[in-house]
Amino acid sequence: MNSRRDFLRQMGGSALAAPLLSQLPTSAHTPADRQLRVALVGLGSYAARVARAMKDCKLAKLVGGVTGTPEKVEKWMAEHGLEKANFYNYQNYDDLKNNPNIDAVYVCLPNAMHHEFVIRAAKAGKHVICEKPMSVTVKEAEEMIAACKKANVKLYLGYRLHFEPHTRELIRLRQSGELGKIMHVNTYDGFRIGDPTQWRLRKNLAGGGALMDVGVYCINGARYATGEEPVWITAQESKTDPVKFKEVDETITFQMGFPSGAIASCATTYNFNNFERLYVIGEKGFVDMSPAFGYGPIKGRTRNGDMNLDTSKMHQTWQMDGLADCILNGTPDPNMTGEEGLKDMKVIEAIYKSIAAGGKKVLI
Amino acid sequence: MNSRRDFLRQMGGSALAAPLLSQLPTSAHTPADRQLRVALVGLGSYAARVARAMKDCKLAKLVGGVTGTPEKVEKWMAEHGLEKANFYNYQNYDDLKNNPNIDAVYVCLPNAMHHEFVIRAAKAGKHVICEKPMSVTVKEAEEMIAACKKANVKLYLGYRLHFEPHTRELIRLRQSGELGKIMHVNTYDGFRIGDPTQWRLRKNLAGGGALMDVGVYCINGARYATGEEPVWITAQESKTDPVKFKEVDETITFQMGFPSGAIASCATTYNFNNFERLYVIGEKGFVDMSPAFGYGPIKGRTRNGDMNLDTSKMHQTWQMDGLADCILNGTPDPNMTGEEGLKDMKVIEAIYKSIAAGGKKVLI
Repeated sequence: MNSRRDFLRQMGGSALAAPLLSQLPTSAHTPADRQLRVALVGLGSYAARVARAMKDCKLAKLVGGVTGTPEKVEKWMAEHGLEKANFYNYQNYDDLKNNPNIDAVYVCLPNAMHHEFVIRAAKAGKHVICEKPMSVTVKEAEEMIAACKKANVKLYLGYRLHFEPHTRELIRLRQSGELGKIMHVNTYDGFRIGDPTQWRLRKNLAGGGALMDVGVYCINGARYATGEEPVWITAQESKTDPVKFKEVDETITFQMGFPSGAIASCATTYNFNNFERLYVIGEKGFVDMSPAFGYGPIKGRTRNGDMNLDTSKMHQTWQMDGLADCILNGTPDPNMTGEEGLKDMKVIEAIYKSIAAGGKKVLI
Repeated sequence: MNSRRDFLRQMGGSALAAPLLSQLPTSAHTPADRQLRVALVGLGSYAARVARAMKDCKLAKLVGGVTGTPEKVEKWMAEHGLEKANFYNYQNYDDLKNNPNIDAVYVCLPNAMHHEFVIRAAKAGKHVICEKPMSVTVKEAEEMIAACKKANVKLYLGYRLHFEPHTRELIRLRQSGELGKIMHVNTYDGFRIGDPTQWRLRKNLAGGGALMDVGVYCINGARYATGEEPVWITAQESKTDPVKFKEVDETITFQMGFPSGAIASCATTYNFNNFERLYVIGEKGFVDMSPAFGYGPIKGRTRNGDMNLDTSKMHQTWQMDGLADCILNGTPDPNMTGEEGLKDMKVIEAIYKSIAAGGKKVLI
């Protein structure tokens, strides 16, 4: 248990230990007091970032990978000191079940592949971390949760910010009552996308555009900023470049109504920069984070001035050590389960539905 | 003509002289090279602010007032060195037509009284400045414009920010192309309203709530930030305190779609503080103003850092000198005519219509 205590102390302790979810049982697959051995699924640029971040992890350890590009194996083996026996391709991926040296996979594939590769990992008896967005439909997300439950493996979303100090402090300020009753959220996230041939612009791989990719941060952010679940959604779309954004959404504004009466006013885009913020206003205080969602450094401000919290680590270092602690030691996770991903997927579907209905309110 | 040249130099020149509207004819009522003599209509707290600001004016001069409270006359006479002959009440207001020592009135009454008191001033042959919102309905605004046109008097809105240096710089940056194509606007304005007995919370005096009072800054702001007129509106309302806000709106989020495809995502409230911003994002740059609409100091930021513009004067000093220059010397006004007020009123009506239709798009 020492490793867990040390880790909690290192993370700042209180927020991680907060009862965000009911205490999770420690899985039989992963006895305590050792490292979580992870294989990355899909060795693209995001997996490369996770791998770099994991070099500084204490509880999580990169041990393998899954790729459709054989040339990548040697390169990754050399760069990260990995064994060939821990590499798979998309065909023999299911053989993971026979590998006792891999405890969990982190699915970093294009969105539309999450469903299949999460479920196959679950069937192979491995814990799963799935990059956001969870899936491309609500139905898929529900099936992923069911498959992991059936296989008795954990399912977490790659919501790295839940382990990021500014985000954790925002949640703490809200939970402690220091912000007072939450009155409003203003949040947006987006960027001007480059290469027009990338998978993010293909509907069959991405499922959707800016909303799926970065708008999901606003959805998740509005939910952790209020601590409430939306009861209605309205949304509007703008497409100024119908060639580049032929298949997926370019810019979407959307609003989430919460039971308390607070509204989150949100926007997301693939067509302009300087667009990243999470501003939550309570009766007694506010937290204004900008940038709020990117790889950092995150910056935040409260009525007391700049937050000035730890920005010394890559978010994925905190995330992977944090999730390893959840899996290895049963530490409650900070709202990153499959169920959380499903809630965001329900909002995404409601947003597309509202757009199709000319902005009309869609009840959730 | 010297006074105008001096004034333009003092104001920074270029923006004021920009051809925002066609050159206005100099009115026969107000020969050049003298001061515009103004009476304030409704001697409440806003009129008191205007009066204070006018102490520093060069081209505008406070000479009288109109009030329903006789005790206020002596107080105002003493405080501002005014003559009794230039004071009126709401009954004898029309006698203004026989007073050659008053050139213009500034209507600072509750919103629902603007229509009557603007039209009566026009009939008395006086130029009119009307505080925002212009009226409580589109129909009223149209009648006010028609009355002033018929009487051959000028009609301006109290959109003081059009003479405020940060706002003028924002408009200049957009007009000059330095911001590039405008992609998005995020803007909100609001505050937690105090005294529950005030006229702003009475439908018959205010016409509406936060939207009418401060939301109109977001509407006007999104229009001058984009230089476009909206083609569609969507809107959502939240009411958390149905007692205090029994008669008028508390919090409204709304979106304006522009022909270019840019969306303005807006919000306004009477129920929380720390809520004032105008953020315009172009392909080449941005302007982020917060606070953006209050009495100052306005603060702004561009990609080059803090704007650090002149905040040395009360906005109403700039405004009244600027409008006096427009009226006395035919200087083009920076989009503050009755027609501008009417455009904002059309948006306000569309917002209420969209809310009633469950958020559905209302075409303008």
